[in-house]
Formats: sequence, structure tokens, C-alpha cells
Amino acid sequence: MTTATIEHESDEGTANMKARSYAETKTPQIRLDKRSPECWRVTFDHPPLNIFGPEMLPLVDEIITAIETDERLKVVVFDSAVEDFFLIHLDFLAKLDDMAHLPPGPTGLHPWPEMLVHLSRSSVVSIALIRGRATGMGSELALACDMRFASREKAILSQFEVGAGLVPGGGPMARLSRLMGRGRALEVVLSADDVPGDLAERYGYVNRSLPDADLDGFVDALATRIASFDKQTIMDTKRLVDVASLPPDIEIESGWNACVASMGRPPTQQRIKALLERGFCKPGDAENRLGDFVGR
Amino acid sequence: MTTATIEHESDEGTANMKARSYAETKTPQIRLDKRSPECWRVTFDHPPLNIFGPEMLPLVDEIITAIETDERLKVVVFDSAVEDFFLIHLDFLAKLDDMAHLPPGPTGLHPWPEMLVHLSRSSVVSIALIRGRATGMGSELALACDMRFASREKAILSQFEVGAGLVPGGGPMARLSRLMGRGRALEVVLSADDVPGDLAERYGYVNRSLPDADLDGFVDALATRIASFDKQTIMDTKRLVDVASLPPDIEIESGWNACVASMGRPPTQQRIKALLERGFCKPGDAENRLGDFVGR
Amino acid sequence: MTTATIEHESDEGTANMKARSYAETKTPQIRLDKRSPECWRVTFDHPPLNIFGPEMLPLVDEIITAIETDERLKVVVFDSAVEDFFLIHLDFLAKLDDMAHLPPGPTGLHPWPEMLVHLSRSSVVSIALIRGRATGMGSELALACDMRFASREKAILSQFEVGAGLVPGGGPMARLSRLMGRGRALEVVLSADDVPGDLAERYGYVNRSLPDADLDGFVDALATRIASFDKQTIMDTKRLVDVASLPPDIEIESGWNACVASMGRPPTQQRIKALLERGFCKPGDAENRLGDFVGR
Repeated sequence: MTTATIEHESDEGTANMKARSYAETKTPQIRLDKRSPECWRVTFDHPPLNIFGPEMLPLVDEIITAIETDERLKVVVFDSAVEDFFLIHLDFLAKLDDMAHLPPGPTGLHPWPEMLVHLSRSSVVSIALIRGRATGMGSELALACDMRFASREKAILSQFEVGAGLVPGGGPMARLSRLMGRGRALEVVLSADDVPGDLAERYGYVNRSLPDADLDGFVDALATRIASFDKQTIMDTKRLVDVASLPPDIEIESGWNACVASMGRPPTQQRIKALLERGFCKPGDAENRLGDFVGR
Repeated sequence: MTTATIEHESDEGTANMKARSYAETKTPQIRLDKRSPECWRVTFDHPPLNIFGPEMLPLVDEIITAIETDERLKVVVFDSAVEDFFLIHLDFLAKLDDMAHLPPGPTGLHPWPEMLVHLSRSSVVSIALIRGRATGMGSELALACDMRFASREKAILSQFEVGAGLVPGGGPMARLSRLMGRGRALEVVLSADDVPGDLAERYGYVNRSLPDADLDGFVDALATRIASFDKQTIMDTKRLVDVASLPPDIEIESGWNACVASMGRPPTQQRIKALLERGFCKPGDAENRLGDFVGR
Repeated sequence: MTTATIEHESDEGTANMKARSYAETKTPQIRLDKRSPECWRVTFDHPPLNIFGPEMLPLVDEIITAIETDERLKVVVFDSAVEDFFLIHLDFLAKLDDMAHLPPGPTGLHPWPEMLVHLSRSSVVSIALIRGRATGMGSELALACDMRFASREKAILSQFEVGAGLVPGGGPMARLSRLMGRGRALEVVLSADDVPGDLAERYGYVNRSLPDADLDGFVDALATRIASFDKQTIMDTKRLVDVASLPPDIEIESGWNACVASMGRPPTQQRIKALLERGFCKPGDAENRLGDFVGR
């Protein structure tokens, strides 16, 4: 339904990008802004909800492939151009058959967890700048990033899935438990509730929450700073942190399989149907107050 | 000395409980309140200290077995009916011979660590609502729960054991180090000191500390919320968090063995004897200010 | 250039210390104060920067060996006698050839990571009392300690190395990721920026930051308290925390090798040369504001 544009504001390093084929379309969903050869910005711009439709998958894949293969890139920042929404969950109103039948990626994972694993393991430093709601896949993308900074007033993170009868599929059980410990990770995934910016910081869901007015400046300065350092040194240092802290792929795979299984269960399908009837996946109270919504 | 009652306020799911044999006795130690088929409440009610006498062990075992085997139960909350005490340590004034000679459970562990391991691995979500002192076995039970919420004003957690010459036996070395990192875990177990509610939150000992007036409402709402979700989805999601975050049983076993060894050492027996002479295990300053007491 | 004294204020347990050979020299770099047989204090006193010259290495080694082999010692506290500096990084103005050619220690590691591993695994409880800057090796020593307490106003921790083109060599990738989770550990090492006391507490870099006026009293009381407990019980309890929380030696070795490799790369040598020309390793703005300095 929506179409997609990936813009390239600089002409460096774009030769190997399939994204060009999208360049003439009019409604951008994800914008890639190569602010410098060392520092890129990826902006989700799919109003009104930044909901994750099936057509987003190849776009994200393309961008992550570009990130992985560029030789000069050091830092990438993910943010949103949509008021109140960083990036949210799967669009259950869309045709999901295409998505289910996608071939697995190189590690044998479904493309979604596969690209998250690639982002985490990439030698490029990834930073999520979270303003608005990051729920479901939006939270999973943020968790796959190397660092997360949130607006204290405007960020809300959540894994709402259990409230819809779904096991989250993009790795939050593996990642949250390593970030915040078992007790808080279980609370986040099993309560399926909204986690505002300040609680997200106290729990370690994000590195820090900052006053909204300071967030952009802080992330810009950090990204620019890291991008001024030596790429090989960044790579080697990140790799050593990863050895100690990244979940093994098998945990991500197991989570994905549990997600797929949950999606096929009749009680889950009934829950999702009931939620859709009450306004889920549409602009309005359901998505604006998703934590309350799934708990009702 | 004390006797025990397990009450059943609803009649569902009780057929297979051995607890009924206690139903006519008069002084409850642990109350089981089946508020709904999906959500139970377990209340420690053994005044004046909620001290852990040997007779508590089969009662806790029975309740954990009921939790594990009930087919509809989704959430269980542990709390206390005793002012100032959630649940504390072993009663060193009781005959402990019986306890030492208990046969091991199915995983080969002594019954105490065995039942804690079962509680953690159970598909039921367990929440500790901590008001008053949770020390020794009380802290260990709380740590074996999936989540912990504490009264900011009235909760005090601690592993006092090292102060008495004992290695803690119910797994806090394994569990605290995963919740709060090595430095804070070492401080908690080696200082053997009191950890009040707000510090417990900063350290990750509990999920959150809440104003005392808000604690019951918060935990009730969370328990009810989770209990409204799909049981299979809860189970699968919890299991995946556990893969990443639960200690292996061998660490719990090793800790228990170190505890038993420490209990047999003459310097430890002298320390415990001296503490008992000064009021340990009796109502009063020793138990009200246990952190100060063992440090003097 | 500088010389070294290790002082012994009590005469117990010094028989096996090689340190005596230094006893007549005049400019102390590291002071060992045996406040009691159970509780020692190690004070870095190498003004004006407490910079880590190659001559410090055998002194630290000697002290850690003394700590490891003393039979009565239970607690050691590391602090600084130099205003504004706890202990900082390698002195790049010194002849570093000697340091590079040191024979490996018993586990096959270079002496620096080797002695940090020994400190962590020692049965003695080690506490870093951090006032002033702990950067590079100073941060690494603090991280190898069992606990860290920082002055809220005067402590600054950092791993500045990536800013100089270096991979940190003393294990912070392995240790920080276990203390604070992947996101914050990546921020600390890749931003290479200053972390003041209060942020260090929020991130779990230190156990707690305390008002400067309270810091000494707090650490003294904690050290004295733990030193009053049973040594065997302390050892067994610490060992069980370590099982769950210490990085394997191979991660430390891999980090050291990456550090050595980075030091040999021309871009790194150019960065260090440029930093030295701007005042690095000398008293003044470079070291007083190292985070800003390497980011410029």
C-alpha cells in the first residue's frame, strides 16, 4: 500500500545499494541520510504510526546490508520523523503471508531476527535515538542496536506481545535478560506494559533517558565523537564487548520459533482479532496507550 | 512447636493437595489463598518473626508442588501477614537435626535449594511482595521468585550469613551476581548488611521499591494483569528468559555444600553460639537490626 | 626516574616480601599500610598525576603477590594520596620497551592483565576507594577489585583508550559488559569519555558514589566490618560469586592481544604522537579534562 524511498544526501558509498530502485517513489518510509562517510542517519518516516508493514522488511534489510558492507562507515543513528512513534509492531492489518514465506538468511534465521543479529554483530556502531513509542519490532530494533538513548518525556518502550497472546519474536527475552537481569526482564515481557523513559533508564532498557530538548544534541555529539576515532580500533573493541554480552544465535532462533508457534494458536488468533476489532494497528487510543489497551 | 494451616478460600484445584491434612489445626504459618484459579496468594504468618523453623520446610514444599502441578494457575504472589518481617532465616534455636537429614529432591539437591530451583523453573509466574525483613532464607525465596517488589519504607533485604560465619546456602551468590553484577553482589553477601528498599532498587536486588501505600495495589494490578494473559504464551516466554538468566543447578548445589561445610566448622559454631547468647533468633534488637547486630 | 618505597607500618607478615629492598629509598610511589593483620591499605602516591610508569609494574606485582600469599589478610583497600588522581593510564613519555618485553606470568598473560586476574581471584576482598581520576589502568585496577566506591564530587572514571586509537588492554570489555550490560559498556569504551561519580553509580561502574565527605568513613567501616568475619567463610562465598561473574582468562588475553596489536598500528602511533604534542601525559588541561581532550 505504502511505497518507499531511500534518499542519499551524499553520493559516497552508494554504488552497491539496491535502494536506488526506490529512488523515484514519493512516500518515503525509511530515509537514509549519509551525513558524512563515517556517520549515517536512518529515519523511520511512515506516518501516522511508523507501523511495521511487510514492505518495511526489505527496506530495513537493504539498509543493514549497506551498513555492514560500507568500508568507511563507523556510526549509524536510527531515529523517527513521526511524532509520538519511533517504530512500532507488525501491522496485523496487512497481508502477512508474504512475510511468513520469506527464505531464511545466511545464519538460517528468518529475515527479521537475521537482520537484527547482523546489526548487532556489525563492526559499525549503532545508536537508537528513541522519541515516541518503540514497541514490538521497534523495541527489538532498539535492543539490537549497540546503544539506546531515550527522551525522558516522550519515549515509551514495550514488548506488548504477551498481551496479545504472542511470544516476542525478535530476541527481547535473550537481550533484555542480559541488559537488566532476570527479574526486570520477566516484568517487561510478561507485563507487556509500557515502560516510560525514566523507568527504562532505571531498568537498563536504555543507556540513559535525557530531557527531550537535550536528546538530539547529545546523540549527535556522541555519534560524531565516535566517528572521529579509528575504525579498526572501534571494531576490535566492540567485538570484545560482544564476546561477553551478545546472546548466541540459537537463543534468537528459539525465540523466533516460539513466536511463530504462538501466532498459529487459536487463542492467540482470537486475542489478536479482538484487539483489531477494538482499534489495534490504527491511529487512536489503542496505539497511543497500548499498555493499557492490551491489559483491559 | 507451632502448627500449620493452609487455607483454601476457593474450592478449585485443591483435590490433589496434601495440604488438607493441616486444615483443622489452629495456628497458621503459611496461608494459601486461591483468589482465583489463575492467581494465588501465599502469606507467611508465623509471628512474631516469620522465622524459618524446620517445620516450615514441608509446608513450603507442599505449596511449591501445588504451584507446579496446577493446570490453571498463572501467577502466585508471596507476602507476609507479620508486621516488620517478610520471612527471615533459619531458626537456630530449633532442633535442626531433622532438617539436615532430609532426603534429597529429584535433582539431587537438599530440599531447600531444590524447592527454590523448582519455583524458578515453574511455568507459573512468581512475585515477592516484600514488606519488612527478608533475610537469609526470606531473601533466598524472594530471589528465587521471578520478580520482587519492595516497600520503600518498610522492606529490608539481606544475606546476613557471612556475619555469622556461614556461607549462604540457598543460591544468593549465583542469583545476586546475575541480577546486579559482581561488585554489588560481593558487597551484599560479604558485608552481610541490611539493604533497605531504595538501595535494593538501585542495586537491582528488587525490580522496584514503591511507596508502602502503593505497593499492594501495584502488585495486585500486575498479578491480575499477567493472569489475564494466555498461559502457554506466558510459559514459553518465561522459559526463554530463563535460558539466558537462570543459574545452572550445579552452582546452587555447590553453594549449598559450602553452606553445610561452613555450618560444621568450630569457628562458625562459636559465632552462632555467641550471637544466640546476645539475642539472635528472638524478638528484639538482634532481629530488628540484624545488620548492625552481626557487625558488632 | 622515580623511585619507590613500600612502607610497612606493622611488622606482621612481611617476611616474604621482596618490598624490603625498596625500603630505604625516598620517594614513595605506592605505600602499603598494614593497618591490622586482617586489613591493609595500598595508597598510590606518585604525584602529580599518579601516572602509570613502567616502574610501577613490579611494585604493583609485589603488592598483589603479598596480598595473595598472606595468611591472615582478609581485606585490602586501594586509594590515592594524590589530589584529583586515583591512578591513571600508562606514561607514554616513558621508555615502554622494558614493559613490552616482560615475561608472561603463570597463566601465560602479560604481567599487567595477569596481576589483575590474580587480584580478582585472590581470596582477599579488594575495595577501590576512588577519589579523582581513574582512567585507563586506574579504571582497570578498580574494575579488577571486588568492589568500587567513588566520591560523588571528585571521582571520574574512564577508559579513554579508543580515543587514542588503542584497544583497552586490561580487561574492561570483559568486565564492564558483565557489570552494566552491553549497551552501557559499549558507550563507556567507545565514547572513551569521562564518567563522573553519579553516572558511574547509575551505570554500575561503581557499587555506589557517596558524598566526598562520607566516602572514607564508609569504606573504612565496610573494610573493618568484613575483616571481622571468618576468613574461610569469606573465601568460600567470594569464590561462588566469582564462578558466576568473573570473565574467563581467555577474554582478558584476547583483549590484551588486541591492545598490543592496536599499539603497533601507524594510525594509532600518529594519534598518540599528536596527543603527546598537545600535552597528553603531562600535568594540565589534557589530563584534567581527558574526555574532552581526546574528543577534540
